[in-house]
Amino acid sequence: MNEFSLINHFFKQQAIEREDVVFGIGDDAACLAIPAGMHLLVSTDTLVADVHFLSEWDAYDIAYKAVMVNISDIAAMAANPCWISLALTLPELNPMWLKRFSEGLHSCLKKFNISLIGGDTTRGPLSITITIHGLAPVGQVVRRAGANIGDKIYVSGELGAAALAVASCKINKIEPVDKQLILDKLKHPNPRIDLTTILRQYASAAIDISDGLSADLNHLCDASGVGAKLDISAIPIHQLVKKYQPIKALDFALSGGDDYELCFTVPTKKEKEFLVAINKLGLSCYVIGTIVGERGLSILEENGEISTLTPKGYSHF
Amino acid sequence: MNEFSLINHFFKQQAIEREDVVFGIGDDAACLAIPAGMHLLVSTDTLVADVHFLSEWDAYDIAYKAVMVNISDIAAMAANPCWISLALTLPELNPMWLKRFSEGLHSCLKKFNISLIGGDTTRGPLSITITIHGLAPVGQVVRRAGANIGDKIYVSGELGAAALAVASCKINKIEPVDKQLILDKLKHPNPRIDLTTILRQYASAAIDISDGLSADLNHLCDASGVGAKLDISAIPIHQLVKKYQPIKALDFALSGGDDYELCFTVPTKKEKEFLVAINKLGLSCYVIGTIVGERGLSILEENGEISTLTPKGYSHF
Repeated sequence: MNEFSLINHFFKQQAIEREDVVFGIGDDAACLAIPAGMHLLVSTDTLVADVHFLSEWDAYDIAYKAVMVNISDIAAMAANPCWISLALTLPELNPMWLKRFSEGLHSCLKKFNISLIGGDTTRGPLSITITIHGLAPVGQVVRRAGANIGDKIYVSGELGAAALAVASCKINKIEPVDKQLILDKLKHPNPRIDLTTILRQYASAAIDISDGLSADLNHLCDASGVGAKLDISAIPIHQLVKKYQPIKALDFALSGGDDYELCFTVPTKKEKEFLVAINKLGLSCYVIGTIVGERGLSILEENGEISTLTPKGYSHF
Repeated sequence: MNEFSLINHFFKQQAIEREDVVFGIGDDAACLAIPAGMHLLVSTDTLVADVHFLSEWDAYDIAYKAVMVNISDIAAMAANPCWISLALTLPELNPMWLKRFSEGLHSCLKKFNISLIGGDTTRGPLSITITIHGLAPVGQVVRRAGANIGDKIYVSGELGAAALAVASCKINKIEPVDKQLILDKLKHPNPRIDLTTILRQYASAAIDISDGLSADLNHLCDASGVGAKLDISAIPIHQLVKKYQPIKALDFALSGGDDYELCFTVPTKKEKEFLVAINKLGLSCYVIGTIVGERGLSILEENGEISTLTPKGYSHF
C-alpha cells in the first residue's frame, strides 16, 4: 500500500458525510457550506510523541486523545464541532498502526458527527496536528473575555485524575482497577459538548482546562481584565487523586492539566436558572469561587486565611 | 520570554486584521464571519525539517515556504486565501529564530492579505503545519474532477528549477548567480493566485504541482476519469535545468515537484477567450497536451513515437 491508497482506505472511505461538506478529501482543499447566521470557529492542537502521549500507546488512544482535545476547544466556545483536518507525521507506514489509529479517530468523529475533510500525511517523528472547525449562532459564541466582577466561577467536573495517571508510573501500589480508571481519564478525555447550549444561555466566559485549572482560569481572568477568588474546599478533586496523593491532591487538581473539563463564569442573576437547567439535563457542575476586581488569583484556605495562588500549568519551554 | 509572551509578541501583535475575523488569536478558537454566497475552502500542509526543508535554512525561508505551499492549494481551487492557523513544533525557544520565522511568515501573509487566526506551539522535532482557509463564490470552485475529453492541458510556468536546487549540492560548477536563482525557486515559491479569476472563468479542472507534473496531472486525470496525452516538446523546462541537467532536464520537469505552478484544463471552445484573457493580464501559460478517454498518461516523443508516461513524483514512504 502506498501513501495514497492508505489515505483512501483508512481515512477517506470511512469519513462521515455531512450535508454541509460540499466535498472533502481528494482535492487540493475541502469545500464547506456555512449556513447563514452562523459563525465559524477554528482551533488547532498538536500532539507530539513522548510529550503529549507515549509512542508505545495503542494508536487507537493516540487518535482518540488528539481528536477529543480539539473538540474540547470547540466546547469551550459553546460551539458545535463539524469538521476536522488531520496532519499526520509518521516515522513509517505501518498498516496495523494506521488501522488502530483510524479506528480511534473514526470512533470519536462518529460520536460527535464530525467529518474528516482532509489533511496531510508526511514522514518524520510521530506527531498529530488537528484543525477543528465548529459552528455557533452569531452572537452566541462564549469567549474568555466576558467575565465580570461578582460572576460565579464553575468547573464542569472533577480534576486531577489525568495528572495522576501521568505521575502513576512513579506511584507504587495503585490498584489495577484504579489504574485503569485514571489511564482512561488521561487517554479518553470527554469534551463537554453536552454543556454547549447551557453555556450559550448562561455563561459570561469559558475556557477548557488543558494546561491546569489555575493556569487556564488565569488566562480567562487576564482576557476579562479581572481576578478570581477561589475556595479551597470547593475545588472538585477526583476521588482517586485524594486516595493516592492525599498531600499533593490539591496541587494535582489546580495545576495538573489534561482534564479537558470546562471552567466558566455565570453572572449571579442567571445562577438559579443555570442550576435548574443543568439539573434538568442530569449534569452537575462545581462552583469554586467568584470573579473579583483585583487582578490575579487568590484562594481561601481551610483555616480561613486568604493566600495568593500562583497560576501553574504545563509549559513546553 | 515564555511560551505565551512569545506567541503574543511574534504572532498575535503582528497579525493582519481583516473585517471577516470576528476574533483571532487569544481564545480557545478563532471566530470568522463567512459572507453569504461564498463557499469555505480548507487545506492543510505539513513541512517537516530535513524532509521538506533543511534545518539550517534561514527561518525566514522556512516560514515563507510553509505559507506559500498552503496558498498554492487555495490557488488550485480558484479561491482567495483568507486566514491561516499555524501549528509550530520547535526543539527550543530561540527568540532570534522566531524573529526571522515571524518575519517570513508575516511577509507572505501581508502580500496576500491573510490573517493569522491561531495555532499551537509545542516542543518537539521542528515541523510546521499550516491550515489555510479560503473563500470562493458558490459554484465557481475549480476541482480536480472536471476535465473532459478534448480539453487542452496547461501549466502556468516553467518547471524543474526547485528540483534542480534540491539536486544542486551534487552538481558541480553551478554559477553563483544561477544557484541563487534556483534556490530562490525552491525557498520562495510563488503561488498562482494571479490566475484565480481566470481559472473560475475558463478552467474545467486544476491541481497544483507539488509532487511533480506527471504525478499531479495523473491525480487530476484519475479524479476526472480520463487520461492525458502530452507533447514532449511542449513541456516548459526551466532554462537553468536545461543548462545544468541537459540529459535529465525532462525528468526534472515531469517529476521534480516543489514548483507550485498550476496544471489545469481548458475546454477547446473556451480556449481562445482564455488566451485573450491571460494575455490581457500580462501572463503566459503553456499548453502541454490534451485530455483523452484512455486512462493513464502518454507522451509524444520528438521522433514522433508515443510512449507511456509513468507518473512519478515525491512519495514520503
